[in-house]
Amino acid sequence: MTNTPRANDNGNARRPAAELSIAAPQTLTREGGDSLVDQIVRSIEARIDDKLLRSGARMPSIRQFADLHGVSRFTVVEAYDRLVAKGYLDSRRGSGFYVRERAPLAAPVAARAVDAAPAQLDVVWLVRNMFRQQLPPGRTPGSGLLPGDWLDGELIANGLRAISRQNQSQLLQYGNPQGFLPLRQQLQLKLAELEIAATPEQIVTTSGITQALDIVARHFTQPGDTIFVDDPAWFLMFGSFATMGTKVVGIPRLPDGPDIARLAELAAIHKPRLYVLNSVLHNPTSTSLSAAKAFQVLKIAEQHDITIVEDDIYCDLHPGPQVQPATRIAALDQLNRVIYLGGFSKTLAANLRVGFIATSPEMAKRLSDRKMLSTLTTSDIGERIVYKILSEGHYRKHVDRLRGKLDGVRDKTFKQLERIGMRIDIAAPAGLFVWADAGCDTTLLAERALEEHILLAPGALFSPSQLPSTRMRINVASMSDMAVLRFFEREIGRLQGK
Amino acid sequence: MTNTPRANDNGNARRPAAELSIAAPQTLTREGGDSLVDQIVRSIEARIDDKLLRSGARMPSIRQFADLHGVSRFTVVEAYDRLVAKGYLDSRRGSGFYVRERAPLAAPVAARAVDAAPAQLDVVWLVRNMFRQQLPPGRTPGSGLLPGDWLDGELIANGLRAISRQNQSQLLQYGNPQGFLPLRQQLQLKLAELEIAATPEQIVTTSGITQALDIVARHFTQPGDTIFVDDPAWFLMFGSFATMGTKVVGIPRLPDGPDIARLAELAAIHKPRLYVLNSVLHNPTSTSLSAAKAFQVLKIAEQHDITIVEDDIYCDLHPGPQVQPATRIAALDQLNRVIYLGGFSKTLAANLRVGFIATSPEMAKRLSDRKMLSTLTTSDIGERIVYKILSEGHYRKHVDRLRGKLDGVRDKTFKQLERIGMRIDIAAPAGLFVWADAGCDTTLLAERALEEHILLAPGALFSPSQLPSTRMRINVASMSDMAVLRFFEREIGRLQGK
Repeated sequence: MTNTPRANDNGNARRPAAELSIAAPQTLTREGGDSLVDQIVRSIEARIDDKLLRSGARMPSIRQFADLHGVSRFTVVEAYDRLVAKGYLDSRRGSGFYVRERAPLAAPVAARAVDAAPAQLDVVWLVRNMFRQQLPPGRTPGSGLLPGDWLDGELIANGLRAISRQNQSQLLQYGNPQGFLPLRQQLQLKLAELEIAATPEQIVTTSGITQALDIVARHFTQPGDTIFVDDPAWFLMFGSFATMGTKVVGIPRLPDGPDIARLAELAAIHKPRLYVLNSVLHNPTSTSLSAAKAFQVLKIAEQHDITIVEDDIYCDLHPGPQVQPATRIAALDQLNRVIYLGGFSKTLAANLRVGFIATSPEMAKRLSDRKMLSTLTTSDIGERIVYKILSEGHYRKHVDRLRGKLDGVRDKTFKQLERIGMRIDIAAPAGLFVWADAGCDTTLLAERALEEHILLAPGALFSPSQLPSTRMRINVASMSDMAVLRFFEREIGRLQGK
Repeated sequence: MTNTPRANDNGNARRPAAELSIAAPQTLTREGGDSLVDQIVRSIEARIDDKLLRSGARMPSIRQFADLHGVSRFTVVEAYDRLVAKGYLDSRRGSGFYVRERAPLAAPVAARAVDAAPAQLDVVWLVRNMFRQQLPPGRTPGSGLLPGDWLDGELIANGLRAISRQNQSQLLQYGNPQGFLPLRQQLQLKLAELEIAATPEQIVTTSGITQALDIVARHFTQPGDTIFVDDPAWFLMFGSFATMGTKVVGIPRLPDGPDIARLAELAAIHKPRLYVLNSVLHNPTSTSLSAAKAFQVLKIAEQHDITIVEDDIYCDLHPGPQVQPATRIAALDQLNRVIYLGGFSKTLAANLRVGFIATSPEMAKRLSDRKMLSTLTTSDIGERIVYKILSEGHYRKHVDRLRGKLDGVRDKTFKQLERIGMRIDIAAPAGLFVWADAGCDTTLLAERALEEHILLAPGALFSPSQLPSTRMRINVASMSDMAVLRFFEREIGRLQGK
């Protein structure tokens, strides 16, 4: 066996073949739940994401790999095929398998996507890894979701069965472009509990909060406009807004809401069209807006004619004002200047893709038309399932249980993190995340973590300007594997020592 | 009872109350499948769409309506509430119900959506009406879908049940952003039958063709760029592309494909980024591209560096080359310059929202990233259902049956239409539509038709420049109600006489 290109490579190999010892899983096991194919796929993916296997590198041949690791060639063929299907490898006829060139996630701002130099927005690897379901749930503290075994699959399965028994003609035609009406009626009740008055005609369903943000931003901005976001904030937005050619400016987030002085100053300079923020259980800090801050933000928005987009995706994980005060700007403003977004990806199932927009009746019509032009309708299968769960009263009990479980693990996680030297300066613990300070560059830490199949969400990702950070977002529900703590203890010490 | 505003109107009524005899259904019946509420809702909707009830008009009070029509007030309350929820009426506290101002469908080109004067793109009423499922299926010759009772709801219901029995964790987390892999593997086989070679990594699933067009157009164009479309063509595109600030230019469509001389001439003038066309069973004419035309289009596209977007949504309704020659440009080009789009809204169920893009591996990655930024993932519930139907071999039999039924009704419909004086100049009858010439302005005809609860698709809608037309698109599967033919016979005569 050799690491240099063979004579029969047809001249396609541009770089030496990957080190076999790197390309291969460190330990393949026939015990546990994962198949050998799964293990090989996961291991190679991690090495590519981590850039241990570089673009263009030739993979060991199927026979080489099989011989070296004592697995059948069939297993290797299947693993390589899956890596090709996932875009990790290229198969070149007669030459073998190569690590693919990866495309950058975000297209250059307002430029020809095909030929311009990409503006490197390095959210690609975390976002792609978010979708790598093969990672064991206890090893994904960087994930934004609750672990699958915390959620209630039976609720969803019951919903599917109920729909399969309904009048079938409903599934064959298009749904209502504004969203399934009975669900919008349920959402009216939900919003009323938050002191936000909205009739069903003021609500438009979307394919998750992501589509809601996309529709709103496209409606309100044109290239060159500015959008304010929290700093730190949910990073997928940065890429999405950048492809629209808008300028994204971060407003520093303090424990009780935005830095008001900075907001006023930047609003005067940039005249933004939109300010997108989480009032409640802000991602990534899990802090919420005080009443005073909510009022001040609204006043500044009125002064500078800024539309506020209040993304309340973590709404149902909030423990109530007795634990952590939280004011929604929409409750003050009543959907005049505030566009309120919600959804069920965090509490029911991400795959249902059910989110919604609540806004003025006039804007709801416009955004519904926008939605129609970009996806015609949303599938109402997911919307009918959420409707059933809400209307039958299962939802409240379910989210009560989730909050209880979060409270159960949060304290323990905080103590463990603090014991190994991380700093957690949070006034009122709540929600899914803790924004911990590791005292070292967490991007380096995250890269090291992936080698050990641990998914982290380093602070730089949440920075609108991708500044390096010693913070990272930790999902307190995904810290059950002690290997993660051991990793932190060892690697943070090593990185701090550098 | 009176038609003028009452003294206790709080000054809100800007116009006299609607004529009771107009606002009310002509004939309410307690027989048949529709509830009284449904009948009232449908009747008032039609009158609003038809502008017999104008924006701002006050509706009769609930008591007035109930007394006049001998129905309970509860029935009227429910009907009015549903009309409010659907955006047809406004409820003003203490004053009553009013016909809402309707927003235009398309936002102005590259302008502030909020404050600019709307560019009237009058697709709004047909698109909204497409979603009015209350219209009886035999009275919707303007619809783009097969009637619900032609489709197989049991196939979909079986799929839902099967998914409800699968490993539930699959539904709780996000799906693969590029789309459910086993479905993409099935699509590879489907494309191979069309002589288009595409691996699963070259395929990206979308929420119907609509999202595919949205993603592709956003990726390739910036405001001011030109997109070519067929003339006539599917009208939702015009609105979608207009909101992106692109210029839409129509290429005249002849029976065997585009007018090549005109295409060459316009390509040199406009230097378009994209040319979107249906090669097979073109909407609205149901004609297909000859081999010679396909080659010429591709040559011109190469010469002017135009990316071709081949929308093949009617693919599976095509009867085969022995009936109507049909060449896909992607079969010539093999996904270099051609982006191929397909989907299952026409043949399985519109509500599943399953479409796909096939393109080069590199472009698939980029478009998959675009999709991630706009909707994160598609729900893979619909994708798993389509996968099950394709992989278990039900699909081929199902579409064979659909084509057989279409052949059964098409000849009869053609004869009926020709007998009442419509002109049909089609060489090889195939597909779902006929592009019939009524010899009068079909926009006027469509307006009259809505008064009688008949949905037509007038030619002007399919014109990129909304030019008046004597043509209209007739869905041969939705002509079962003889009242439609009687309507044509009577009204076309009347309009031709004008």
